[in-house]
Amino acid sequence: MLDRVAEVADLVTVALDELLPRADGPESRLTEAMRYAALGPGKRLRPFFALEASRLFDLEERPVLRAACALECVHAYSLVHDDLPCMDDDDLRRGRPTLHRAYDEATAVLAGDALQTAAFDILLDEDTHDDPAIRCELAARLSLASGARGMAGGQMIDLLGVRDDLGGVARMQRLKTGALFAYAFEIPLILAQAGETPSHALLSFAHDVGLAYQIVDDLLDVEGDPEALGKAAGGKDAALGKTNFVTLLGVDQARTRVAHLADQARSHLEVFGHDAEILRASVDHVLTRSR
Amino acid sequence: MLDRVAEVADLVTVALDELLPRADGPESRLTEAMRYAALGPGKRLRPFFALEASRLFDLEERPVLRAACALECVHAYSLVHDDLPCMDDDDLRRGRPTLHRAYDEATAVLAGDALQTAAFDILLDEDTHDDPAIRCELAARLSLASGARGMAGGQMIDLLGVRDDLGGVARMQRLKTGALFAYAFEIPLILAQAGETPSHALLSFAHDVGLAYQIVDDLLDVEGDPEALGKAAGGKDAALGKTNFVTLLGVDQARTRVAHLADQARSHLEVFGHDAEILRASVDHVLTRSR
Repeated sequence: MLDRVAEVADLVTVALDELLPRADGPESRLTEAMRYAALGPGKRLRPFFALEASRLFDLEERPVLRAACALECVHAYSLVHDDLPCMDDDDLRRGRPTLHRAYDEATAVLAGDALQTAAFDILLDEDTHDDPAIRCELAARLSLASGARGMAGGQMIDLLGVRDDLGGVARMQRLKTGALFAYAFEIPLILAQAGETPSHALLSFAHDVGLAYQIVDDLLDVEGDPEALGKAAGGKDAALGKTNFVTLLGVDQARTRVAHLADQARSHLEVFGHDAEILRASVDHVLTRSR
Repeated sequence: MLDRVAEVADLVTVALDELLPRADGPESRLTEAMRYAALGPGKRLRPFFALEASRLFDLEERPVLRAACALECVHAYSLVHDDLPCMDDDDLRRGRPTLHRAYDEATAVLAGDALQTAAFDILLDEDTHDDPAIRCELAARLSLASGARGMAGGQMIDLLGVRDDLGGVARMQRLKTGALFAYAFEIPLILAQAGETPSHALLSFAHDVGLAYQIVDDLLDVEGDPEALGKAAGGKDAALGKTNFVTLLGVDQARTRVAHLADQARSHLEVFGHDAEILRASVDHVLTRSR
């Protein structure tokens, strides 16, 4: 299991290195900053799910890998901007200085901007797929998942801190991290032009794992080891007066909920039988993480 | 001439109002901020050029207008981020407080991000064009014009201030503002699937007018009336130690260069004969501006 995750992470890092723009002029500072943010030691969890789910449909690897790299560019851009002093003001990310600490704020804003653009650049390139209808669908779904009605909208809610109850926290999570998490599974579904049954199964799986992943994130914020996490912990949300799943549910009930969601997630995969063995096994791996 | 420009500006503002996302939840603060930035009193110069150039090819208005709105979203996002304290730190834009002054920095970063996403959302929607190959080409060209090898790259060079000579300033301008300016003409060229001759003519026109427009901008930075401009002036570039066309050429030579570029721009339109009358007349209108 661990081997497979590490293998995909390497594959994605190599592909991203090839796909990200390079520059010779003074603007190379920008392309270097983009690389710092995107090629760092990430878990590459979303690409892992995109690639593993694609095995259910016998898809060619190249289009999935390129689309997964685009998804990772959007994920990287969102982390760079979320870490900015005017947002979460974080100094550490994945055990290294955040981009605005390693470079400067202006470069971090620009590099985030250009990483978002690079995602669309990658998806819309003919090398991603011969059929322009497929390329359009891949890009349109990514823009939906990441814009005002998806990730950016969720980040706005997070900044405002308006979420007094579980419903509010769940809605925030669904927009801020759930939409992009689901996109990992939309990639193979779009490429396979899959029907109702596999679509429903994989998107339900994405929903449950995504939610459980967020609850684990909130648990790690309270209980995690900052060194293993590579970023600040120690109840940062609670200290900022922000509610999250753990401040609302308590540690024990949050853990129970993760276990229930994991069971439910695995049950969605039954339609795929043995083919989904690795995806099924990945649930525990993903949820028993220390970072 | 003035009527035509004002008419297009109204058309674009109404269309943008319809196309920009709306939200009911707390994330409505984000969609309102996006509207503040995109629906303000802009000149809508790029959409004007896209729509006027489209008359040369007898194109249906709707696809051109939608693509012009997408272009305007990218333009608006770039202004929001350029105005941030960590970039140019401007308080006024188009005679109103900049977005981070009217809202706050975090909202301004997010609204810029989501305006970029909205641009791709609009272009990739089936309502923009029936043919997905056309939608892909429109979106791919926009990403090329606005990313690290276009607008964002140019902004990086501008921030670094590395441009000692005219060649450096011209290269910065070509990336920072020229690429997006040219995209206004690429819209009708892509929609008409135009051939070599009209493409070369319009892109050369875009090059000359875009360059002349930037020199006029640099002249206004020295000579302009801040009230008419709706933003700071008074030799801001020179005060920041930044070279531009006017600090390098002097006012008189800069003016002469604008006149030469205007003549040259008009001459590129000869292949279109009388059909390009309004585009030809627009050159003087655009270059004898006070804001």
